[in-house]
Amino acid sequence: MAKKMNAFYAQSGGVTAVINASACGVIEAARKHKDKIGKVYAGRNGIIGALTEDLIDTTKESAKAVAALRYTPSGAFGSCRYKLKSLEANRREYERLIEVFKAHNIGYFFYNGGGDSADTCYKVSQLSEAMGYPIQAIHVPKTVDNDLPITDCCPGFGSVAKYIAVSTREASFDVASMAKTSTKVFIVEVMGRHAGWIAAAGGMASSPDTEIPIVILFPEVPFDEKKFLASVNEKVKKYGYCTVVVSEGVKGPDGKFLADQGLKDAFGHAQLGGVAPVVAGIIKRGLDLKYHWAVADYLQRAARHVASKTDVDQAYAMGRAAVEFALKGHNSVMPTVERVSDAPYKWKVGMAPLSKVANVEKMMPKNFITRDGFGITEKCRAYLAPLMKGEDYPPYKDGLPQYVRLKNVAVAKKLAAFEA
Amino acid sequence: MAKKMNAFYAQSGGVTAVINASACGVIEAARKHKDKIGKVYAGRNGIIGALTEDLIDTTKESAKAVAALRYTPSGAFGSCRYKLKSLEANRREYERLIEVFKAHNIGYFFYNGGGDSADTCYKVSQLSEAMGYPIQAIHVPKTVDNDLPITDCCPGFGSVAKYIAVSTREASFDVASMAKTSTKVFIVEVMGRHAGWIAAAGGMASSPDTEIPIVILFPEVPFDEKKFLASVNEKVKKYGYCTVVVSEGVKGPDGKFLADQGLKDAFGHAQLGGVAPVVAGIIKRGLDLKYHWAVADYLQRAARHVASKTDVDQAYAMGRAAVEFALKGHNSVMPTVERVSDAPYKWKVGMAPLSKVANVEKMMPKNFITRDGFGITEKCRAYLAPLMKGEDYPPYKDGLPQYVRLKNVAVAKKLAAFEA
Repeated sequence: MAKKMNAFYAQSGGVTAVINASACGVIEAARKHKDKIGKVYAGRNGIIGALTEDLIDTTKESAKAVAALRYTPSGAFGSCRYKLKSLEANRREYERLIEVFKAHNIGYFFYNGGGDSADTCYKVSQLSEAMGYPIQAIHVPKTVDNDLPITDCCPGFGSVAKYIAVSTREASFDVASMAKTSTKVFIVEVMGRHAGWIAAAGGMASSPDTEIPIVILFPEVPFDEKKFLASVNEKVKKYGYCTVVVSEGVKGPDGKFLADQGLKDAFGHAQLGGVAPVVAGIIKRGLDLKYHWAVADYLQRAARHVASKTDVDQAYAMGRAAVEFALKGHNSVMPTVERVSDAPYKWKVGMAPLSKVANVEKMMPKNFITRDGFGITEKCRAYLAPLMKGEDYPPYKDGLPQYVRLKNVAVAKKLAAFEA
Repeated sequence: MAKKMNAFYAQSGGVTAVINASACGVIEAARKHKDKIGKVYAGRNGIIGALTEDLIDTTKESAKAVAALRYTPSGAFGSCRYKLKSLEANRREYERLIEVFKAHNIGYFFYNGGGDSADTCYKVSQLSEAMGYPIQAIHVPKTVDNDLPITDCCPGFGSVAKYIAVSTREASFDVASMAKTSTKVFIVEVMGRHAGWIAAAGGMASSPDTEIPIVILFPEVPFDEKKFLASVNEKVKKYGYCTVVVSEGVKGPDGKFLADQGLKDAFGHAQLGGVAPVVAGIIKRGLDLKYHWAVADYLQRAARHVASKTDVDQAYAMGRAAVEFALKGHNSVMPTVERVSDAPYKWKVGMAPLSKVANVEKMMPKNFITRDGFGITEKCRAYLAPLMKGEDYPPYKDGLPQYVRLKNVAVAKKLAAFEA
């Protein structure tokens, strides 16, 4: 590229504890190459910011503020749940993107998200070729669900895994103290509608030096009430208590989500989500044991205060690598985490073509789940352990983490408003 | 006391992130005074351990293991939910306690708990006098509910407050990122069935440098659906999103818990607890906004990984002071936290007679809640801020906190089994 081009960066889908660390990696790397990259413009609320020409000028942010992104959870520029349709179904949206990129001299497109955004990124790279406007589209991986292919893991996952493992261990210590006269079963509901990666992390709460009786309900394993109750009962008999980690995506033998049990309140209103209370009811009726239940929901994916250092480092590295790939002329690719060895854990940055990433979902290997369907295998432990490793605390002031809020100054618009 | 007497220590009621720090204070202080205090025996599962003569010999634990109690959540010796009846109703239980204490040469009774256990401790001190067996009964304050009188705060509360404030801030950053196209209201349910101390802590997530729109539902304020929806709606209009912190103890105008809405599943089974989903339903029907909800439950009171240093220090100090009071000959008292000043925060150890502690519940002052009933005042902030201050991280190994498990070696029994 002869002319110095600007870059566009946007955050997509559910945010994580470390997606801003990737933003930090992108912006800091770009600032180191001012000879080649002009300004980094961020999309306000993800790709919607590009469609509506609502761009944020990140050059207005101080080096200190950008550095603080590394320890600030959530999406600093706003994210969105918005999947671009196929080129055939909505060519106008893609054309609009190219118009906006042209108007703002944008030659680099960094899109930070999961499977859907990898697909969008891939389409942008294809369209830019078709339309003769040179855009280098690089996808920056992010998803707590850990379901992107090729990369060994996804930034965002390691920190959720750590949060769930730590919280499950702590709550298990609690219920163990109470079990003699009170609560005997603790149930914690975790994210992961399609794959059991996060639920598996709950199993890490138990380790050889700190054994904890845990029953995991994976979305990969159809719920078998009888077997489940027998497993919980056996553990309560042996240890005096039991912890259940249940994925929001657990399905019954009928293929329906266990959470969708048609709960209604006294007025006949449908009740809203939560598989943990459903499992509590099953335990109450089947075993008549005292229980407590928790639903971690956003707390788990926002928990930057207990983030994994490995995860933060990888999120940052993915952002930086995206810029480096772009500078080397790559297009339609995604940086990946390549595992070199388990113990000691070693990893390096790899590269995957978006054509092989878009619309491919990585499920948990079958040999990560124990034969009874309620636990994790040694193979799974060897995979998960390094991803949760290391602490990386944010700075605190008056007892609270000091997360940054950016100024998010808008770039002056040059085009007419877009009517979708 | 001419003869060197042993001490009894037990944990009572719901455990906390720092009750073991009090145990650490008791044991370490006693070990420093081996000339005056013999062995510290812990009750296995609280007072039940005394009734059943199931005592744990803490001298079998290494100094390192005892020191590790300071950063280990839950009750290391087991707790119990068991309230001794009145002396009239069950004199045999009290007599049994004295028998066990006599048999094991126990002259000090340290009971670590909340209101109910302060009452038990008080009765033991009275009975020992009446029965002519000299026991010095000292209550060590503990409760996440922060509802003990006289003491400025209760060990256990500061860490829950910090957990809720940190988690609410993090989840609020998350929903703020998502609000443009997805979740606009996040609801987190917190503990506190009678008093809104923990719910108030949720308000601390917002600070002058990090403003967050938060609506708090206190158990002290009867739920007014219309006013609540108006408040949420106003905040969503102004900020684009809103966070709701709801106490499990919120009651409707009819005086019934909002959580007890008679939820039933498709089979007609009663649904089990959780006010967060009830509030989600109210928001869905009243405002039709996309929501997410979480129930922190045990995660909040077990979260030693994000404990308040102030809280840990005070928990330890209360345990140590209990021993020092005993050595000075005090009986039927409880060490307290006396606040000397807000900013800079200064506190010292005080002493309260158990006659004034037992069966008294400290509610939130009215002037801690804003006039609209949904927020906290500056007075409340000045009270809460120092209690959450300071970080005190546990050691980690392979990404997980290394909490201690004691050997908990039983003391040989000397009496016949007790039939309650």
